[in-house]
Amino acid sequence: MAMQHLDPTDDPTAGPVPSDILARYLRDRATEFLRALRRHREAGPGGPPARTEARPGGSGPEESVDAARALRRSARRISGSLHTFRPLLQEAWSEEMRPELAWLSGALGREHAYQARLERLLLALHRLSGSAALPVQGLDPAEVAAAGPPSHPAAPDRGNLTVGAAKAGALLERQLTLARTRAHSTALQALGSARFHAVADQVAVLASEVPLTPAAAAADLRPLAAAAQDRLHDAVAALPLVTAGSPYNATALIHGLSPDPSPHPQDAPWHQVRLLLRLHRYAREVVLGGGAPTDVRIAAAGRALDHHRDAAEAAAAAASAARTPRIAPATAYALGVLHADQRHEVEAARFAFQQAWQMQTVSAP
Amino acid sequence: MAMQHLDPTDDPTAGPVPSDILARYLRDRATEFLRALRRHREAGPGGPPARTEARPGGSGPEESVDAARALRRSARRISGSLHTFRPLLQEAWSEEMRPELAWLSGALGREHAYQARLERLLLALHRLSGSAALPVQGLDPAEVAAAGPPSHPAAPDRGNLTVGAAKAGALLERQLTLARTRAHSTALQALGSARFHAVADQVAVLASEVPLTPAAAAADLRPLAAAAQDRLHDAVAALPLVTAGSPYNATALIHGLSPDPSPHPQDAPWHQVRLLLRLHRYAREVVLGGGAPTDVRIAAAGRALDHHRDAAEAAAAAASAARTPRIAPATAYALGVLHADQRHEVEAARFAFQQAWQMQTVSAP
Repeated sequence: MAMQHLDPTDDPTAGPVPSDILARYLRDRATEFLRALRRHREAGPGGPPARTEARPGGSGPEESVDAARALRRSARRISGSLHTFRPLLQEAWSEEMRPELAWLSGALGREHAYQARLERLLLALHRLSGSAALPVQGLDPAEVAAAGPPSHPAAPDRGNLTVGAAKAGALLERQLTLARTRAHSTALQALGSARFHAVADQVAVLASEVPLTPAAAAADLRPLAAAAQDRLHDAVAALPLVTAGSPYNATALIHGLSPDPSPHPQDAPWHQVRLLLRLHRYAREVVLGGGAPTDVRIAAAGRALDHHRDAAEAAAAAASAARTPRIAPATAYALGVLHADQRHEVEAARFAFQQAWQMQTVSAP
Repeated sequence: MAMQHLDPTDDPTAGPVPSDILARYLRDRATEFLRALRRHREAGPGGPPARTEARPGGSGPEESVDAARALRRSARRISGSLHTFRPLLQEAWSEEMRPELAWLSGALGREHAYQARLERLLLALHRLSGSAALPVQGLDPAEVAAAGPPSHPAAPDRGNLTVGAAKAGALLERQLTLARTRAHSTALQALGSARFHAVADQVAVLASEVPLTPAAAAADLRPLAAAAQDRLHDAVAALPLVTAGSPYNATALIHGLSPDPSPHPQDAPWHQVRLLLRLHRYAREVVLGGGAPTDVRIAAAGRALDHHRDAAEAAAAAASAARTPRIAPATAYALGVLHADQRHEVEAARFAFQQAWQMQTVSAP
């Protein structure tokens, strides 16, 4: 058991980690997946939770949201481990399973992402306009959703920007609530589909038997985990970290007014590092086992990259809302301020990542 | 001469600085003022320089701009010294002269300020939109000024944001060029007015004779210079420097969408410190003499506060342009992005000030 607590990358003299550690990890994740699936079915399909404040306490929908999160958590770990430890697993099975897990994880995650994006944008509008966003947040979203296309006339708005902020909030609420409702339906359809049942069956098999290759028996997990870490380090080395570490470098908003503001090409390498960091974290989980200490540097860097992704998507949603036909100039102005604000959060997240990455690796128990 | 090189604040053991040092400083500044005034008259009134690139090289307008800058430079120093060393100067004369110098400095500075604000905003639009702002900068400003109110229809703009940036640039160019032209006329009127001739006469007297009080003969300039420094330090101590020193604190854009975004009340203490820093700098010039080493910390802090003021005013100009009736939503969106961008420059300037202020005082020769 001692070797489980040696970080393959921190300690080059550590002994080999046998492949049955990987088999056990995958079986445990598969069991978690099946447990979450059962919880999700018991909670019932549930309507889309209209608003966080409006949810009845301890209800089915909340249990359903938690269960969906646990399903995605397990699916991501299984998929990531299949990728990192590919050479040790039966290729045909592994190649078939990974895209299915990604599809499931995507289908289950979208509803929550729209909800979080809306909350982030309304919070930012609230911050930017004092109490101006409050009336919008107080509206019944069902009412907002039923209101149809914006009824603001094209007549000049004389520039009460607080009105602009409120209208921008209502527009975002309408658009993102609609997107979330669609994502909810898509997720329900996914969970009822033959495709999903096939994935669930595969995971059920995985819970009892992991299809290792014959060569895996004598293999060491450490070099494969180290390779995942190398891919992360190479990708981080290619990031513009000197710029990111210089506060207020004004890089994230460059091309903020270009014709196609979404997605920003400059964001892609950061999103890629986010994925590689996750793969590294899972590989570390496999090799070090469940009792492994948290790498606070990796945790802080991961949070910064999650923040980066959320802010980039929120900024894109504000820019996209500004392209809605027939909105009032004051609404468009507020969306412009909001877009720039979120792009600055993107820049702030890069700074936070740079700071986290420069930290000495400190392991907390 | 040795005492001239002792900073009154850095060296409490330094000897007294007699009041004839102040008299010489004021005479020198008055002489500079009169020389600049002569240059300005010789250069002729000049039309408002339409565009920096379009100015004929070495021309009258450029000389006129330089002379006006020199006039303001001298006026600010005389006015600042009258304030800091008030107890040593005849009260009635000093009380009468200061507001007149401030009026003159303001009248002469406004044209340049509008020009600089426009250049800053067009540069920012250019940065934010790639090459989108170029067509606007390529327009003949006379043509823009002659174009009258915006002719964009209120019809919905389907969201080509590059068009929005170009339109925002054209709108700002029109509004700020108009403001600059008015400021130019006002400055010309001021320079031809009886009020101005009275100030010029007073400065001419000052160039030969400084009205010191009888008590000034035995006075030391150091305590008065130190008091100016104390006022600066007290005002800096009241600034939110801990927040300012934390990058990406997102403070400058708070209330960015409030109904009256200009002026931001949060900016006032920073503007006040900018003025107090200037008074400290002039007092230091008086006491240490012309050959005094530059305090790089004070210079960097002063640049940060100038940047703070410029960005705050540019942000207000963008917000103000967004309240123009009948602008297209895409124009309003671009102005919102621009406003937020400039408010982030305000925040960046506060960070730069905090960094400069934390530096150890280093004197360069």
